[in-house]
Amino acid sequence: MMNTFGNLFRLTSFGESHGAGIGGVIDGCPAGIELDMTFIQNELNRRRPGQSKITTPRKEADEVTFLSGVFEGKTTGTPIGFIIWNDNQHSADYDNMKEVFRPSHADYTYQTKYGIRDHRGGGRSSARETIARCVAGAIAKLVLMQEGVHIQAFTSQVGSLKLDKSYQAYDLSLTESNAVRCPDPQKAAEMEELIAEVKSQGDTIGGVITCVIKGTPVGLGEPVFGKLHAALGSAMLSINAVKGFEYGDGFEAALYRGSERNDRFYNDNGKINTHTNYSGGIQGGISDGQDIYFRVAFKSVATILMEQQTVTKTGEDTILKAKGRHDPCVLPRAVPIVEAMAAMTILDYLLIQKTRG
Amino acid sequence: MMNTFGNLFRLTSFGESHGAGIGGVIDGCPAGIELDMTFIQNELNRRRPGQSKITTPRKEADEVTFLSGVFEGKTTGTPIGFIIWNDNQHSADYDNMKEVFRPSHADYTYQTKYGIRDHRGGGRSSARETIARCVAGAIAKLVLMQEGVHIQAFTSQVGSLKLDKSYQAYDLSLTESNAVRCPDPQKAAEMEELIAEVKSQGDTIGGVITCVIKGTPVGLGEPVFGKLHAALGSAMLSINAVKGFEYGDGFEAALYRGSERNDRFYNDNGKINTHTNYSGGIQGGISDGQDIYFRVAFKSVATILMEQQTVTKTGEDTILKAKGRHDPCVLPRAVPIVEAMAAMTILDYLLIQKTRG
Amino acid sequence: MMNTFGNLFRLTSFGESHGAGIGGVIDGCPAGIELDMTFIQNELNRRRPGQSKITTPRKEADEVTFLSGVFEGKTTGTPIGFIIWNDNQHSADYDNMKEVFRPSHADYTYQTKYGIRDHRGGGRSSARETIARCVAGAIAKLVLMQEGVHIQAFTSQVGSLKLDKSYQAYDLSLTESNAVRCPDPQKAAEMEELIAEVKSQGDTIGGVITCVIKGTPVGLGEPVFGKLHAALGSAMLSINAVKGFEYGDGFEAALYRGSERNDRFYNDNGKINTHTNYSGGIQGGISDGQDIYFRVAFKSVATILMEQQTVTKTGEDTILKAKGRHDPCVLPRAVPIVEAMAAMTILDYLLIQKTRG
Amino acid sequence: MMNTFGNLFRLTSFGESHGAGIGGVIDGCPAGIELDMTFIQNELNRRRPGQSKITTPRKEADEVTFLSGVFEGKTTGTPIGFIIWNDNQHSADYDNMKEVFRPSHADYTYQTKYGIRDHRGGGRSSARETIARCVAGAIAKLVLMQEGVHIQAFTSQVGSLKLDKSYQAYDLSLTESNAVRCPDPQKAAEMEELIAEVKSQGDTIGGVITCVIKGTPVGLGEPVFGKLHAALGSAMLSINAVKGFEYGDGFEAALYRGSERNDRFYNDNGKINTHTNYSGGIQGGISDGQDIYFRVAFKSVATILMEQQTVTKTGEDTILKAKGRHDPCVLPRAVPIVEAMAAMTILDYLLIQKTRG
Repeated sequence: MMNTFGNLFRLTSFGESHGAGIGGVIDGCPAGIELDMTFIQNELNRRRPGQSKITTPRKEADEVTFLSGVFEGKTTGTPIGFIIWNDNQHSADYDNMKEVFRPSHADYTYQTKYGIRDHRGGGRSSARETIARCVAGAIAKLVLMQEGVHIQAFTSQVGSLKLDKSYQAYDLSLTESNAVRCPDPQKAAEMEELIAEVKSQGDTIGGVITCVIKGTPVGLGEPVFGKLHAALGSAMLSINAVKGFEYGDGFEAALYRGSERNDRFYNDNGKINTHTNYSGGIQGGISDGQDIYFRVAFKSVATILMEQQTVTKTGEDTILKAKGRHDPCVLPRAVPIVEAMAAMTILDYLLIQKTRG
Repeated sequence: MMNTFGNLFRLTSFGESHGAGIGGVIDGCPAGIELDMTFIQNELNRRRPGQSKITTPRKEADEVTFLSGVFEGKTTGTPIGFIIWNDNQHSADYDNMKEVFRPSHADYTYQTKYGIRDHRGGGRSSARETIARCVAGAIAKLVLMQEGVHIQAFTSQVGSLKLDKSYQAYDLSLTESNAVRCPDPQKAAEMEELIAEVKSQGDTIGGVITCVIKGTPVGLGEPVFGKLHAALGSAMLSINAVKGFEYGDGFEAALYRGSERNDRFYNDNGKINTHTNYSGGIQGGISDGQDIYFRVAFKSVATILMEQQTVTKTGEDTILKAKGRHDPCVLPRAVPIVEAMAAMTILDYLLIQKTRG
Repeated sequence: MMNTFGNLFRLTSFGESHGAGIGGVIDGCPAGIELDMTFIQNELNRRRPGQSKITTPRKEADEVTFLSGVFEGKTTGTPIGFIIWNDNQHSADYDNMKEVFRPSHADYTYQTKYGIRDHRGGGRSSARETIARCVAGAIAKLVLMQEGVHIQAFTSQVGSLKLDKSYQAYDLSLTESNAVRCPDPQKAAEMEELIAEVKSQGDTIGGVITCVIKGTPVGLGEPVFGKLHAALGSAMLSINAVKGFEYGDGFEAALYRGSERNDRFYNDNGKINTHTNYSGGIQGGISDGQDIYFRVAFKSVATILMEQQTVTKTGEDTILKAKGRHDPCVLPRAVPIVEAMAAMTILDYLLIQKTRG
Repeated sequence: MMNTFGNLFRLTSFGESHGAGIGGVIDGCPAGIELDMTFIQNELNRRRPGQSKITTPRKEADEVTFLSGVFEGKTTGTPIGFIIWNDNQHSADYDNMKEVFRPSHADYTYQTKYGIRDHRGGGRSSARETIARCVAGAIAKLVLMQEGVHIQAFTSQVGSLKLDKSYQAYDLSLTESNAVRCPDPQKAAEMEELIAEVKSQGDTIGGVITCVIKGTPVGLGEPVFGKLHAALGSAMLSINAVKGFEYGDGFEAALYRGSERNDRFYNDNGKINTHTNYSGGIQGGISDGQDIYFRVAFKSVATILMEQQTVTKTGEDTILKAKGRHDPCVLPRAVPIVEAMAAMTILDYLLIQKTRG
C-alpha cells in the first residue's frame, strides 16, 4: 500500500520528476552484502533516458548516492537510504502544464484525489520515479546472485512486430546488444526502424516485455492471497504504462483443454521434473523449480508531440501541443525496471520462505 | 501476504477442502451495515458446485454461519467470524491421491514447501477455499451498494468461443439468465454445448471473465506501488487457475500509438469527461470516474477424468486416472468470485480514500 | 492494527462474550509441529473462570475445536482456524446493561466509536476475548520449546502485598502450586486472604504480574521501531486491564546513575557475559542472551457488586448495581495470558530473525 | 516492524550517527497542509545537543532539508523525503570503539545480530536517529493542531527528584522556561543542579517524562490488539533508553480497589463526563474524550566518562574509558521526542478513525 513495496525486503520511495531528486529507503536487506557500485550504476544506466537515438534525449547522470546502511562497502542490515539528484530541472518548461490536464496522464486524477499537485513533468506520477526501483532492484539482484537466481527481461513486441517463438528459442544474452533490448537481432532492427518512424511523427508506440527467472528453488509463494504470480503481477502492474500481465501460457490458456496443457510429471534421472512448463514455473501460487516466465503489456507513452484536444483545470476545452523531447517507446528502458521489480519480489519471497524452514 | 487479503477491509481465511469447513474473519467492516442474509447466501449459491449440468455435481449446502461481529442483524464494527461447514467429506475417495502428485495441481509444491500436506481433495489449495472470498465479497458489495458502486462480471470466452464486442454492446443484466453466465444468449448456448462436449470426454476447458465496475468516485488508488489496477490484478491472480489479467485495452494496447489511444478530455456539459476509455477507468493508478473494466484469463481445470502420466511422492513414474466427478469449466462459478475480489479491493480503497479527505 | 497480532506468526481473533464463541486464525505457524492437545487445553484451563474460590465462578468448559491447518495431529503450514464455543449465554442477564454505561468499562467508548454495540457481557471488549490468545500462545509455546525458549509468568503483587526480591530469589516452579500463582507460598496465602476479603465486599483489587523468558538467542529485535521490548510492551498493554509495562529495572532505572546500572561485560570462561542484568536481557532493542524479564501492572476489575453512580445511554444520571458473579482479582487468570502474549511475540521475532541469516 | 512506524501516517527512517545524515520518508500525510518551517525547525532545535550547559555540547545545526512531497509550501499527499546532514563527523574519535563492546550499549547485540556494524558513535543505534522522529512528529503536530489536539510533555523526575502532584497542578506553559523542561521552576532548579553535579563526575542520571494529550475526540483506538495505549506504549518504548511506560494511574493502579478507582460517569450539563480520570483518557483501548496522560521512564545514558570493565569483540577483558563529551541526562532533549512519537500515534489513529465513519 502507498509508497512501500515488499514485506521483508522493502522499498519505500519518494521524489518527483522536478523536485530535488528521487530516492528511497531499502529495509530488510541482508547484512554483509558487498555493494558492487559498478553493477548498480550500470542498472541505472540501462533505464536512463538518452542511451540511444530511439529514446528521449533527456540527459541526466542518474548517479545514486547512498546515505546510510553501508559501511566499508558492505550492507549492515540497517536501512539503506539513497538519492539520485535531479540535475536538469527546467521547471519553467512545464508552466504551460499547470492549468491543463494532459490526456491519458495522471494530472486529472492526482488533482482530484489530493486537491493539489506538482504539475512539473508529472511530479510524482512521472516515470522518473522508477529510478528508485532500479536501485533497490539492483541490490536485490546482488543478493539473488548469491542464491543462484538469475533474472532476464527483454522486449518481445513493439506495435505489431513480435517474437513468435518461446523464449527458449532465443539467445537471451544478445538482449543488450541492440537499442531495443530484443534478443532477435533481425527483429530488433525492424523494431528500431518502427520506433524511429513513430518518433519522427511525434507519436509513440506500445509493446510487450517478457521476463524469465531461472534458478528459483521450489517453495516460493504464500497461499492463498500471496501467490507468487499474484505478487509478480502486482509488481509489474505498479510500473507506469503497464496494462496487462500474464504468466506461463497466460491468456492463451483460455483456448486449451486440460488434456492438452497439464504439465505431466516424470522421473528425470531421479529428480521430479515436468515434460512441459505451461504453468510458468508456478503451481498453486508456489514456485515448482521450473523457469518462471511472464509477459507484461505496455501502452504507448501518453506524451506525444501532436495536437490533442483536452480541457483545462477548470474544465474548458483547449488544444494541447507538447513541445521538446518525448520518448517514442518506453519498452527498451522498461526492461531493467521489469527485472528490478521481479528481483525485489523474488527476494522478498525467498526471505519469507526462510521462516518456513 | 499469507492468508490475509486487504488493508482496512480485510479477510483472513482458513480451511481445507475436506477438513471441518471453510471460514474466515472479516476485519474493518464498517459498523451499522444491515446484513442481508438472502443476498449473501445467494452469492454463495452462485459459486456452489452442482448448479447446472455443466458444473461439477458435488452437492453441498454451503450455508454460511456467522460467529461474531453481528448484533441484531447489523455489523458492529468488530471482526466478523464465519464458517461454512463441509458436509460431504468422502476423504477415503482421496486415499489414492496420498502418494501421487497430480499434474498441474499444487500437490508437489505444497509437499516440498511444507514437508507435509493434507492430500484430501487438494486441502488448502482446493478451489473450495474461494467460498470464504464470496462471503466477504458479498458483505463488501452490501457496503458498496450504499456508495453507489456496482460490480458485474460475466463469462466472455470459453475455449475459442468469445464475445467479440466491448462490454457496452451487451445487456449485462442477462448474465444470470444462463448457466455459463454470458450476457449473449446465442453465444452462451454455444459455450454450454462446448462445455458439455468437453465434459463428456472427461476433459476441461479454459476461458476469460470480464468484469465491469460502475460508479466508483474519482480518486481511488494509491501511488505508486498501490495503484488501483495493481491491487485488482493481484486480487484476480490470487484466484485458483487464473493465468492473466489486463485492464482497459490491456495487451491490445501494445499494438497502438499514443495518437490512437490517448483518452482525450472534453467539457461534457460542465463536467470533465473523456471521449474514449481505453484506460479502463484508471489513470496513473487512480480511478478517473469512468467505468473500470478488466479481463481475467483462466486455464482449464487440472482435474481430468483421463489417464495422465505422473509421478509418486517418491518420484516413481505412474499413471493417474481420477475417478468420479469433475468440473469441466470453472468459468461460470468463477464469475461471483471475480466480483467478490473486486468488491473487497474497491471497498478497501474507498476506506483508504476516506483518510485522504 | 485491528484484530490481528503479529507479523510472521500471526493471530487474527474474533468473537464476543455472549455470541456463538471466541475464535481465531493462526497464520504463519511452522509446519510439522505436533499439536499436544493436552498441553493446549491445560493452557486454556489456566485462564478459565471458576478454577478456585478466588475467581469468578462462571463455568465454561472452554474446549478448543480446531477447524483447519492440522492434519493427522500435525500443523501443515496452512492457517489454523479454531473456536471455543460459548455455552453459557444468559444474555437476558445483561438486558439491564443495554441502556447503561458501566464505569471504567468500554461501553461508552464502543458505543460512541461504532454507533452500535453488543451490550451483552461487554461483547467484544470482554476479557473472554483473551481465550483466543491462549490458544495461539499455547501453540507458540510448543514451537518455542523446540527452540529451547521457556516462558514463566507469576503474580508478584496484589494490592500492596508484593514480592520484594528479584525473580531469581524464588523457585518459580512453585507458581502453579497455589490459586494466586505466586511462587512464594507464604505471600501467596496472604494474597489469597486479601482477595477473599475483597471478594466478600463485592469489590475488586489490582496487582502486578512478572514474566521471565529464558533461553532466547542473541539477536531478536528489530531496530528501530520494532525493538523487542516495544513489541513485548505493546503485547502486554493490549491485554484488558493492563495499565503499565516495564522491563529490566524499569521505572526504578530513573533513580540511578550510569555508573551504578551499566551492565559490565566480562569474559565468562570464553563466553561474553555481563555481571548484572539491569537491562532485562535486551540491549538497543535486541535480545542479548540474558534472561528477559518484565512487569505488567493490572488495575482492579471494573465490575464490582456495589452501587455506583453512572449515566444511561442518553446521558441521564442513574445508579448501577451489578448482580451475580464477579471476579475479585484478574491476576491469577491473567498469568497464562501474559505468557501467551510473550510467546507469540518471541516466536514472531524468532521467525523474523531467520530471514537475517 | 523494522524501520517503519505507523500505518496510515507512516515514517520510514534511515541513517547512522556518523554517516552522511539522518533522514526519512513520511507517507500518508494529508495533502494541502502548510509546512510551517519555523515551527518544524524549532522542534528539531528542542532535541538538539548543546542547547544548554546540562546537555552534551555536540554542536550540529540539525537543519532539515525536504526532498519531496512539498510544493509551493504545502504537502501534496505524496511521500515527504527529508534529510538532516551530519556535519560533525569525527569518525576517527571512534576508532577505539571498533574493537570494544561498550557496557549497556547495543554494540554487542548489533554485532551478533548482523555480523557487522558501523561502530562510529553507535551507528544506527545512536540516539541521533530520533531526529527523524522529530521531523515527522512536527508535521503530525501541524496536522493535529487543525484538529484541535494539543500534546505537551515535560520532565517530571530526574533521579529521585520528582514532581509529586498530578499534571493538573502545574502550569505546563512554563515547561520551556528552563533547561530541564520541568513546569515547576523550583524543582527545575534542583534538577539542573543535580544534573550539573552528575555531569561533573562524568556520570549520568535517569528520570521520567510525563506527557499530556488534550483535545482528542472520543473513539480513537482499535480493539483488540491495537488499543490506543498499546500503540502509545510501543511508540514510547521504541525511544532509546526507555525502560517503562504507564498511562492513567499506571503501576499505582495495582494498589487500589475497583470501588476506589472506577471513573464514575455523570451528566455534566447535558454532556457525559467522568468525575475522575484514573483511566488516563482511554477506556477499553479507545479514547474517551478526557485528557490522555502517561509516564515514560528513562534509564541513565550508558556513555559515562569513567573507567568501566568490559570486553573486546573477541571476548577479552579490558578497561574502557570514554573520552570527550557526554550527555549527563537525556530527559530534557527527550521531551520533544516523546511528543513527536505521541503526535504520530494520535494522527495515525485519527486517520484510521476516519474510515470508521
